[in-house]
Amino acid sequence: MVKRYRKEDDHSYTLGTTLTIELLKTQPDKVVCVYYHSQLRDLSVIEPMCKEHHIPLVQSDKAFNILSQKENCFCIGEFVKSEFALDPTRNHVVLVNPSNAGNLGTILRSMAGFGVEDLAIVSPGVDIYDPKTVRSSMGALFHIRFHYFDTFDEYVKVCGKREFYPFMLKATTTLKQAQPTFPCSLVFGNEATGLPDSFLDVGTPLIIRHTDHIDSLNLPIAASIALFQFFSER
Amino acid sequence: MVKRYRKEDDHSYTLGTTLTIELLKTQPDKVVCVYYHSQLRDLSVIEPMCKEHHIPLVQSDKAFNILSQKENCFCIGEFVKSEFALDPTRNHVVLVNPSNAGNLGTILRSMAGFGVEDLAIVSPGVDIYDPKTVRSSMGALFHIRFHYFDTFDEYVKVCGKREFYPFMLKATTTLKQAQPTFPCSLVFGNEATGLPDSFLDVGTPLIIRHTDHIDSLNLPIAASIALFQFFSER
Repeated sequence: MVKRYRKEDDHSYTLGTTLTIELLKTQPDKVVCVYYHSQLRDLSVIEPMCKEHHIPLVQSDKAFNILSQKENCFCIGEFVKSEFALDPTRNHVVLVNPSNAGNLGTILRSMAGFGVEDLAIVSPGVDIYDPKTVRSSMGALFHIRFHYFDTFDEYVKVCGKREFYPFMLKATTTLKQAQPTFPCSLVFGNEATGLPDSFLDVGTPLIIRHTDHIDSLNLPIAASIALFQFFSER
Repeated sequence: MVKRYRKEDDHSYTLGTTLTIELLKTQPDKVVCVYYHSQLRDLSVIEPMCKEHHIPLVQSDKAFNILSQKENCFCIGEFVKSEFALDPTRNHVVLVNPSNAGNLGTILRSMAGFGVEDLAIVSPGVDIYDPKTVRSSMGALFHIRFHYFDTFDEYVKVCGKREFYPFMLKATTTLKQAQPTFPCSLVFGNEATGLPDSFLDVGTPLIIRHTDHIDSLNLPIAASIALFQFFSER
């Protein structure tokens, strides 16, 4: 039966009807079970999808007490977690020690929006299968290949020949000045601390210039601006 | 004494030490009182600022029980709310019916970061003085002039001669194709519903092109990308 989510678990959950439909559309083979609340009136989309893929559809209000604090969640998908090999010929995002689940989900949404589908996370980093990340990605997670690495060097060994663009406040080249070479990796540091200075020697460090009225841009904002600048309308 | 914040109140609060310091730096004349928790060890920055501006500095753990659910909040500033006249010669952001406090704070942070300091909000819209907005703006709120309007037309009457750029999924000109005219207003709709179709007849509607793997970009992401494209390194 359903239990409170922990990082070590093999399964995670989509909390919400739209999100669960996105899961059923994109990765039906990963879905173990779909739970619905007695207050969910309309099963007309969910039920045929579950039937087609032989997925149990179970009414259980208890599952919602355990898994969801949100009042407007009436459908939950339980699915098997997996990890992927990155495509060395494609563009990547690299997040070094990201710490916030909601931020990670927002970055996934922007990646899917701008067609960058490979994500490397350098540990320690927030759990990409945290239901909060899944939810804030609004299903974009299911369009992304991702892999965790112990160090940046370990990532470099498998990522293929490419250009690196670390985003740092100490960089001297601005994002608007950059002349992108593809394939490439956009590299971002932790929300509070940014990238270590050692990344000044990696590829072409870039800065998104801003006024001194703020200390820095919010991480998902910085990542999304970079994705837009490099990949929108390519 | 301190009470739980409500939209009708004349006062609002900065929840956190860094945020309260930013308030004291930028708008000391608005500060009514500063509260600190018995666990706050270091008063070396706060105390002289309060003394200089004759602001009472009060130890009160009770204030924190009432105002803050966050564990790591040890300092609270109480300040008087105000509204501003927008500068008709400057660039503006216009938010039509924004509904999320955290999103609004993130947009304020990006506005301050890209030097756009005038914000119009068309009602109904989230309360800009909600402590959640103040907090997620990370103090950027104190660098912004803002004003609430009952309708977009009411805003147009006072905003001065300018170009309008409404952001809409139905627009045909992309943000990267736009040839900006200044001063201008970037106009964004509600998180869930976007702008009404009537805005297709206002100024030059723009779209931030994205793949069909997502329904839309997150609102603060879209607003920040537009601010970057129009105003960064001008």
